[in-house]
Amino acid sequence: MNRISPLAAPLVALHDRDQRGFASDNYAGVHPQVLEAIAVANGGHQTAYGDDVYSARLTSVLSERFGKPVEAYPVFNGTGANVVALRAACERWEAVVCTDSAHIHVDECGAPEAMGGVKLLVVPGVDGKLVPASLDTLGTRRGDEHTVQPRVVSITQATELGTVYTTEEIAAVVDAAHERNLLVHVDGSRLANAAAHLGVDIGAIVGATGVDLVSLGGTKNGMLMGEAVVALNPDAARGWKFVRKQSMQLASKMRFVSAQLLALYEGDLHLQTAGHANAMAARLADAVAGLPGLTLRPVQANAVFATLPIEVSLRLQERFHFYFWNETTGEVRWMCSWDTTPADVDAFAAAIRAELT
Amino acid sequence: MNRISPLAAPLVALHDRDQRGFASDNYAGVHPQVLEAIAVANGGHQTAYGDDVYSARLTSVLSERFGKPVEAYPVFNGTGANVVALRAACERWEAVVCTDSAHIHVDECGAPEAMGGVKLLVVPGVDGKLVPASLDTLGTRRGDEHTVQPRVVSITQATELGTVYTTEEIAAVVDAAHERNLLVHVDGSRLANAAAHLGVDIGAIVGATGVDLVSLGGTKNGMLMGEAVVALNPDAARGWKFVRKQSMQLASKMRFVSAQLLALYEGDLHLQTAGHANAMAARLADAVAGLPGLTLRPVQANAVFATLPIEVSLRLQERFHFYFWNETTGEVRWMCSWDTTPADVDAFAAAIRAELT
Amino acid sequence: MNRISPLAAPLVALHDRDQRGFASDNYAGVHPQVLEAIAVANGGHQTAYGDDVYSARLTSVLSERFGKPVEAYPVFNGTGANVVALRAACERWEAVVCTDSAHIHVDECGAPEAMGGVKLLVVPGVDGKLVPASLDTLGTRRGDEHTVQPRVVSITQATELGTVYTTEEIAAVVDAAHERNLLVHVDGSRLANAAAHLGVDIGAIVGATGVDLVSLGGTKNGMLMGEAVVALNPDAARGWKFVRKQSMQLASKMRFVSAQLLALYEGDLHLQTAGHANAMAARLADAVAGLPGLTLRPVQANAVFATLPIEVSLRLQERFHFYFWNETTGEVRWMCSWDTTPADVDAFAAAIRAELT
Amino acid sequence: MNRISPLAAPLVALHDRDQRGFASDNYAGVHPQVLEAIAVANGGHQTAYGDDVYSARLTSVLSERFGKPVEAYPVFNGTGANVVALRAACERWEAVVCTDSAHIHVDECGAPEAMGGVKLLVVPGVDGKLVPASLDTLGTRRGDEHTVQPRVVSITQATELGTVYTTEEIAAVVDAAHERNLLVHVDGSRLANAAAHLGVDIGAIVGATGVDLVSLGGTKNGMLMGEAVVALNPDAARGWKFVRKQSMQLASKMRFVSAQLLALYEGDLHLQTAGHANAMAARLADAVAGLPGLTLRPVQANAVFATLPIEVSLRLQERFHFYFWNETTGEVRWMCSWDTTPADVDAFAAAIRAELT
Repeated sequence: MNRISPLAAPLVALHDRDQRGFASDNYAGVHPQVLEAIAVANGGHQTAYGDDVYSARLTSVLSERFGKPVEAYPVFNGTGANVVALRAACERWEAVVCTDSAHIHVDECGAPEAMGGVKLLVVPGVDGKLVPASLDTLGTRRGDEHTVQPRVVSITQATELGTVYTTEEIAAVVDAAHERNLLVHVDGSRLANAAAHLGVDIGAIVGATGVDLVSLGGTKNGMLMGEAVVALNPDAARGWKFVRKQSMQLASKMRFVSAQLLALYEGDLHLQTAGHANAMAARLADAVAGLPGLTLRPVQANAVFATLPIEVSLRLQERFHFYFWNETTGEVRWMCSWDTTPADVDAFAAAIRAELT
Repeated sequence: MNRISPLAAPLVALHDRDQRGFASDNYAGVHPQVLEAIAVANGGHQTAYGDDVYSARLTSVLSERFGKPVEAYPVFNGTGANVVALRAACERWEAVVCTDSAHIHVDECGAPEAMGGVKLLVVPGVDGKLVPASLDTLGTRRGDEHTVQPRVVSITQATELGTVYTTEEIAAVVDAAHERNLLVHVDGSRLANAAAHLGVDIGAIVGATGVDLVSLGGTKNGMLMGEAVVALNPDAARGWKFVRKQSMQLASKMRFVSAQLLALYEGDLHLQTAGHANAMAARLADAVAGLPGLTLRPVQANAVFATLPIEVSLRLQERFHFYFWNETTGEVRWMCSWDTTPADVDAFAAAIRAELT
Repeated sequence: MNRISPLAAPLVALHDRDQRGFASDNYAGVHPQVLEAIAVANGGHQTAYGDDVYSARLTSVLSERFGKPVEAYPVFNGTGANVVALRAACERWEAVVCTDSAHIHVDECGAPEAMGGVKLLVVPGVDGKLVPASLDTLGTRRGDEHTVQPRVVSITQATELGTVYTTEEIAAVVDAAHERNLLVHVDGSRLANAAAHLGVDIGAIVGATGVDLVSLGGTKNGMLMGEAVVALNPDAARGWKFVRKQSMQLASKMRFVSAQLLALYEGDLHLQTAGHANAMAARLADAVAGLPGLTLRPVQANAVFATLPIEVSLRLQERFHFYFWNETTGEVRWMCSWDTTPADVDAFAAAIRAELT
Repeated sequence: MNRISPLAAPLVALHDRDQRGFASDNYAGVHPQVLEAIAVANGGHQTAYGDDVYSARLTSVLSERFGKPVEAYPVFNGTGANVVALRAACERWEAVVCTDSAHIHVDECGAPEAMGGVKLLVVPGVDGKLVPASLDTLGTRRGDEHTVQPRVVSITQATELGTVYTTEEIAAVVDAAHERNLLVHVDGSRLANAAAHLGVDIGAIVGATGVDLVSLGGTKNGMLMGEAVVALNPDAARGWKFVRKQSMQLASKMRFVSAQLLALYEGDLHLQTAGHANAMAARLADAVAGLPGLTLRPVQANAVFATLPIEVSLRLQERFHFYFWNETTGEVRWMCSWDTTPADVDAFAAAIRAELT
């Protein structure tokens, strides 16, 4: 950021580049290597709408990463990825099974239903995870026109509660789903965090287990913006090209989404950044575990869910950004990101400790 | 692009940064000052989803630019901007009037209808422009439940055919619409090109004329990606915050969309880049006008629409990127962008001339 | 109507059973034989939602009537029939071609788009008929994700302007559509009127010509309410059972819709009632043709479209019910129905004559 | 049914008018007084689409019945009524709260979501009833664009499980909803059964308690087909006329829907028929209560929910029509209707008794 142009000068003072909190991995900025990839993809002309060399390379890189030929459709954001995936996978009368904490259910303003035209069938999750046995509750109304027909089971990896399915757990969901002629979609906005936690590649999670569709995350893991819908099962990819465009998720200058995704996924950057965020969450959890009045959920990915006295949290929020998860119980979510530093964690943990001891 | 990291190195060879064509202004990359604004907005944490300092500044900058307080909603792309604007402006039974060449009608894969839930009432355009008298053809069925109720007139400035409404023409459309209790929306993906052609600020086009809603362009004019829905009439902005999120157009790291828009619109960059693109189109038109077998539409913005023998175009396409506009009549579209050089134009014009003389 | 019960007694005085006009064939009541069929279908229990003996018989009767095995789906009304047919036939990104006077375009409050999720591509009609050559204007963007993909050509027989396609004209539309891999849907709310005019069975119109889907009319031709979606091409009937239910068109006591349709279509009642309505329209047209200041469109089905001085029509409306078709040109529509009498026509014609001579 | 015409003759033998079962109140036919009302409304012309004398009278009758001026919109069926009511009441980003056994959730093939554009927020019911405290679980995200905004609480009276809210329970739901600025919709397809059970008029249930919207049942209670959306709160009726038409629920010959509703609701016929069905269910429950291996839910309206050995039910189904409610637990539903006779009940009860003792 040396040599700031006169035009950019007034913007420089707008925010403090050293200020970070624990509110969301979406509060973080762009990883330098991602920014570099954008610069590299710049210059000259490239065919718009995905017929560029970066998007072609992305398909090839992700096919290798997932261990089978995939179709990869870069999109703008996570809600867009989920809606495109589910809208394309489902006929007009088909439905998607998910847990009660699923992002598609609670955090997308009804987009799957209102925009995707897809009803969600919500089952209770356990620690944020869908349990295969819950598919039994879908009942025996296959073919009954009075009820939507389940077509997709959607799970989130890592979950919205910061937990991580083991590959065996994913495989069990896939088996249970496939037995019932259901596809499996993984909302993988934090798939790399799960992989880093499990110590495997992302292919081991969704390629080897038989998952059909993935919303592959980018934004939360160091990109400026961008995700990709990835079809590992070609039969699940009916009409996606049209659905993506109609769903307002077709980037004209797609090379810049694809180049960012290449920066993350061609090498190990996605695991490095996610692994770092995970490590910071673990460091924070370790630092506060056992403090009087504070309880923690299991910490596996980059989130720490803690329950502590509400007035303590309110005081902490005066100095540190984070959100209540449940204003009634006092549970809060502390989210670490690729740019969280050990010093950030230590300062925050110290403040928590000072409050509680 | 010195100091390329090992990670980015394999990407460098992927495309030729000196190759440019006339296919689309979406083929061009990112303007250096826009890239700089992204870098400036990077670093540290900023509240996600629009509650950041760059987005706040954008509202203030655009309010000044348009000469009245506006609400500005950054979104991902042009189709998204149009669908959000129209979906928010219309009740479920209301409709949008547009011309037969409107992007929302012919180039958005039915998104206004399928995703926006809004029927389009198509009237014939003249040189791509909507004529106020065409609103008379909407008939007298106001209040008749058997037919959709017109609510918005949507025009494109500059038009899809490269023409530009004068401010008087816009004002006449606005007056005709408001007399009928209709709102006016401007698809302004090339609004700056229109302003540069008219020699006015964009505020003179949409602020002073009484336009209610604008889809303000960014991507075609040097941004990586991003547009903004702008409400100049607060009554037209019912529920937009929800509609934008539900329509999958809410960027989590919105600071980077807003910072790009600031780079374009805080100063005169939008007029410089658009004006340059216009000048290149004029240069091209001047160079080929009068060639035997070639006819031109009026060239006002950054597009040249030419009709010439199909076999000539097919031979030219072997060396230069451009598209047929109408494969039956042989009309082609040559689009100039912010990065088109005089040398690009001269080489292309020479090739055309060599073919036709 | 002898033996009116005390309960019904207050209703008897509510309206004049001898009053009839020329406003709409929907103003007429229920044909006595249709009412009898309802009574016959009454009593005892029948499986709901279509699994009854009357619905089964309907499929068999219509298969015979159309000359090939069909799937028949009784629904409530014409808009419902059209939306179910088109929604089931089209993928989410597909579209329907129709004329500018099509009921689906101008008289269904945007239901095909807002409820069916189907964009309409409107072409100019000639006398209300779609001309095969107009399919050429759909262009060559097959497979281009930026635009909806045409899937169905929908024509209305008899048309909304009272004209009737010959069977050769229908066959020509079908051939032109099938060559382009498009299905053909007939909005047949007045199909029997067309058959009566042509002197053929309805099967000759839609069975022998290769039409794929029909919205088969009932209400306008003497039923209390009810139409049927009929698939002559089984490939066009994907998921219809679900689509009908989801589209709120699945009657629980379907036996009563099916029994009415049987009353019309098992024998020749549909041709008798429609033929009578046609004859009354012809009688009216004959009686007023040539009157000074009055011009007529061709009268083929049960509508007379006349243009005459507006003030004359306004005076006539004080004594006779009918509607303006176009309040600017003064064109009016005089509609005859199964219960219009020669005396009704003669009295109306006399009044018109008295005004104009 | 004397004097059968030659046309109807082949239909007479189609079904056994003395055969009745316990499958559904939709299996029953039309009450004679309803059929008479149709005949009375027949003859002559009446303005289509609701501008007839029967529909006008219906509004007046229902206003009196509910104790306040209402808007009444006849529609075709229950799913249609619910979707019209909810689609009209909700903005595009608003949602409806209902229980897990709600018809709108489990038996409408996703129509509220796919056609109505309305997300359902499902809370656990107790005996099929929504408990006011469950509204607390909706959380505190009012105004948060990431989540749909609850707008309507929809309850079913009588419930899908055959239970009946007391008027105090309804009032408590209304109070809890209104405190949260939510409207209350009652799916009243069996509202008369609830009223009969409570010994009150339907106005006491939904007029006096402050309910805003009702789907008023007709078909299950002796009509051929037809329901009505009734707005007791005029503010909840925004754009209904358009929404009904667009939702394919506008009957052209509406006089026949309204006349049927008048037959039911102008006098006490709705209470007589529903009360009779309730009495038959009570008779059945009394007759089998206490049988070994059989347990019953509380029987309040016209349904008996019994759990008994599956093989017993399978044998009974060979002679009597009824459905499994839950094929896993062996719970079955025995539904009585307006035409169920004591002899029907006694024969069925005897067969059950013979199986179980």
